[in-house]
Amino acid sequence: MKAEYINPFLNATRNVLETMANVQLTAGKPYLKKDRIAVGDISGIIGLTGFARGVVVVSFSKACALKVINSMMGEQYVDLVDEVKDAVGEITNMVSGDARRAISEMGMTFEAGIPTVITGERHEITRIAKEPCIAIPFKVGNEDLAVEVSLEET
Amino acid sequence: MKAEYINPFLNATRNVLETMANVQLTAGKPYLKKDRIAVGDISGIIGLTGFARGVVVVSFSKACALKVINSMMGEQYVDLVDEVKDAVGEITNMVSGDARRAISEMGMTFEAGIPTVITGERHEITRIAKEPCIAIPFKVGNEDLAVEVSLEET
Repeated sequence: MKAEYINPFLNATRNVLETMANVQLTAGKPYLKKDRIAVGDISGIIGLTGFARGVVVVSFSKACALKVINSMMGEQYVDLVDEVKDAVGEITNMVSGDARRAISEMGMTFEAGIPTVITGERHEITRIAKEPCIAIPFKVGNEDLAVEVSLEET
Repeated sequence: MKAEYINPFLNATRNVLETMANVQLTAGKPYLKKDRIAVGDISGIIGLTGFARGVVVVSFSKACALKVINSMMGEQYVDLVDEVKDAVGEITNMVSGDARRAISEMGMTFEAGIPTVITGERHEITRIAKEPCIAIPFKVGNEDLAVEVSLEET
């Protein structure tokens, strides 16, 4: 897992959320995460292929998802309704797309599958990957969001 | 979503589970599923790109996962421990790989990302896709397993 992948995903998350949802993000320190589990209340997942095979997981606490999506859509949702799930899927797609564009400028091309969105309180997502993933924690106000990227060169 | 994708995934699931886990599967009737939600206790997800972009979801009830994985590994697991999650990820990878090989013989090439495995009682997986997916229900004895495939030509 190359460290040079970190900035494209960090910047993509910031670009997408600040532009689309008009919220301010504070990025924590990215780190290599050895445990394979992401925990959230709602998570978007998208598979990557190309220069390496991988997966991107964007996990929100319920409070963070509602804050971001309500700001993006001008709504007042209080639950993880279908519209919130769709928006989390679209954000996952856009973060992946923005990061892939930046990485392609570094000479590495990726394609992405269809996003899925997982709901279920404190669900766990286990990556079946041999290498550590890059985890980038963010805060939106006091609420938590994490972007985790696993890539394995084939 | 082409009907011709059904048999490769149906056969792949049967091949992988009967060969690797030595269990007998009964396939139900495949159908086009309009709702976008898969429900399970443990699910493997893998993204596809290439001829179309998509995602494959293999969802097990807890009882079905334990029956299959215990048979595959000669174990007596009673919970969805890490070894069971890894095995569900590996099965998802193998079902995708076997189906991709069959589909490539029909002239359509796909690549796959890294699998993830979702746990969390009655978690929901929402596909962010415009088209219905193909759902193939299976029984292993009395226990339920479903393979759901979404593909969207680009």
